[in-house]
Amino acid sequence: MIGVAISEGFDILNLHGAAFAEHAPNLTMLRPEQVTDPGAVDFVVTFRPPADAFAAYPNLQAVVSAAAGVDAILSCPSLPDNVPVLRVEDQDQALQMAGFAAFHVLWHHRGMDQHLADQAAQHWNRPMFGRSPMERRVGVMGFGLMGRQVATQIAALGYPTASLSRRMPAPVVQGVTHFLDDDRAAFLARTDILINVLPLTEATRNIMNAELFAALPKGAAVINIGRGEHLDETALLAALETGQISGASLDAFVTEPLPQGHPFWVHPRVLVTPHTASAPDSRAVVLSIRDSLARVAAGTHTDDRQARGY
Amino acid sequence: MIGVAISEGFDILNLHGAAFAEHAPNLTMLRPEQVTDPGAVDFVVTFRPPADAFAAYPNLQAVVSAAAGVDAILSCPSLPDNVPVLRVEDQDQALQMAGFAAFHVLWHHRGMDQHLADQAAQHWNRPMFGRSPMERRVGVMGFGLMGRQVATQIAALGYPTASLSRRMPAPVVQGVTHFLDDDRAAFLARTDILINVLPLTEATRNIMNAELFAALPKGAAVINIGRGEHLDETALLAALETGQISGASLDAFVTEPLPQGHPFWVHPRVLVTPHTASAPDSRAVVLSIRDSLARVAAGTHTDDRQARGY
Repeated sequence: MIGVAISEGFDILNLHGAAFAEHAPNLTMLRPEQVTDPGAVDFVVTFRPPADAFAAYPNLQAVVSAAAGVDAILSCPSLPDNVPVLRVEDQDQALQMAGFAAFHVLWHHRGMDQHLADQAAQHWNRPMFGRSPMERRVGVMGFGLMGRQVATQIAALGYPTASLSRRMPAPVVQGVTHFLDDDRAAFLARTDILINVLPLTEATRNIMNAELFAALPKGAAVINIGRGEHLDETALLAALETGQISGASLDAFVTEPLPQGHPFWVHPRVLVTPHTASAPDSRAVVLSIRDSLARVAAGTHTDDRQARGY
Repeated sequence: MIGVAISEGFDILNLHGAAFAEHAPNLTMLRPEQVTDPGAVDFVVTFRPPADAFAAYPNLQAVVSAAAGVDAILSCPSLPDNVPVLRVEDQDQALQMAGFAAFHVLWHHRGMDQHLADQAAQHWNRPMFGRSPMERRVGVMGFGLMGRQVATQIAALGYPTASLSRRMPAPVVQGVTHFLDDDRAAFLARTDILINVLPLTEATRNIMNAELFAALPKGAAVINIGRGEHLDETALLAALETGQISGASLDAFVTEPLPQGHPFWVHPRVLVTPHTASAPDSRAVVLSIRDSLARVAAGTHTDDRQARGY
């Protein structure tokens, strides 16, 4: 099969070209300028497609996201209606998410920022109580590939863990209490540390807003490893000011790189990381794309156009 | 049964008295000065016993450690030879250890210290590669209650994980490669992040020394959540200087509190925490002590005199 790799922001073949050659030699991968016969192109691999990305290729059998998210593809005006959109299913990336989430749960639960400040002051400041994971109830919003792995690992570390999703997960995860979105208020009321791994859709945009923060117990912490657009930045700053939210770990932002002078950079209770929670592993990405295209060829594929996990 | 609580360094009944009253009403807990008939005392609960701690009580049936470690009890000169020493088996505390260890694995693997420095500089510095847990092989020294839980959780996060112990663990843990101490060199050679959760014995004192650091791959990181006496501090500082060791997380020290001016406080690649990795949860401690004493009464107890887990 012949594919074209096209994305704004990063060079897919620079990143994954070697893995395509090694793990999917049956796929001929081209850059747009290398295409001589647009009608022969079977699929496009992309992440952030330019507006006209798909217009030149009349015979596409599939559009493949080079990562877990498909929101930029779904909003591309040249996306044909009748072509399946497939996304990478990368358990390695889900484990990256889970480890990163675990780090931030411990950061907030164990007051690791205080330990760092104490070290700087050479101050031995041992807490007497509060180490048990039973001390913090963790809630995970989003229960796709990522959310499932995050909730599984946090629960395994002993934290009372709940998930929030639009549909009841199947299979359920032992040790995780599943809430449907209809019960969002109950989910939030029992959540001391909130982790967002939702996909970005019109239903989830700005979901972390003043109303949500007010529905959490006073002093809750929030961890955003979803998208910047999930978060109302002004509402978070206000909730940090009142103490309704005790701290935040933010990995994704509406504007990236986060601009110089943004209040998050200098807030003493916000930990900023540069959209680094997870990224696709080349080998896992290529194997997933190869297998997705084999399913398209066999007619056994599913369309990931409807974002799952929420 | 009648017990005496006696320990240097902390007041066991101040800490756990309420939990004894709630969860073990069959145990009468006294302070030494409250004992009117020493011959009626059935057991001592202690952690750091003074030298003469056990001398006054001729009819002891058990000595119970108020925590996981028994090293201070075993080295107490008044410990009777013929009395079983029992320790708390606290899964909650093991999970505290696992979470704390996971935090530090991520700290070293993901370069979280760099992210903190970047935030202070308002510098968006996104790494291109290296997020997969496959990038770091973790090794856990010690495979008792704590080491088993630590290795299980780190392996579940996707890190290639190995354990080192004197005896082959039973049951083995899926996803963990078990090394016996005879193969210590092979264990160290495949370990990028070393976690110490050994008990302190004469065989393990100073085990983290120049020879051990040299046997790790260049640039390995070390996490000491065992005892300060496991670590040769001078050897670690030398290995950090040459880059043989890239960073260290240290939670336990030969002298605690860590003295003002100690090089660890100010080292840019050492993260110091105040012996806070884990501590017994009162309810778990009291239930474990109650159950241990019931086994003593029934004659079905085991003696924890021989430190397990290594």
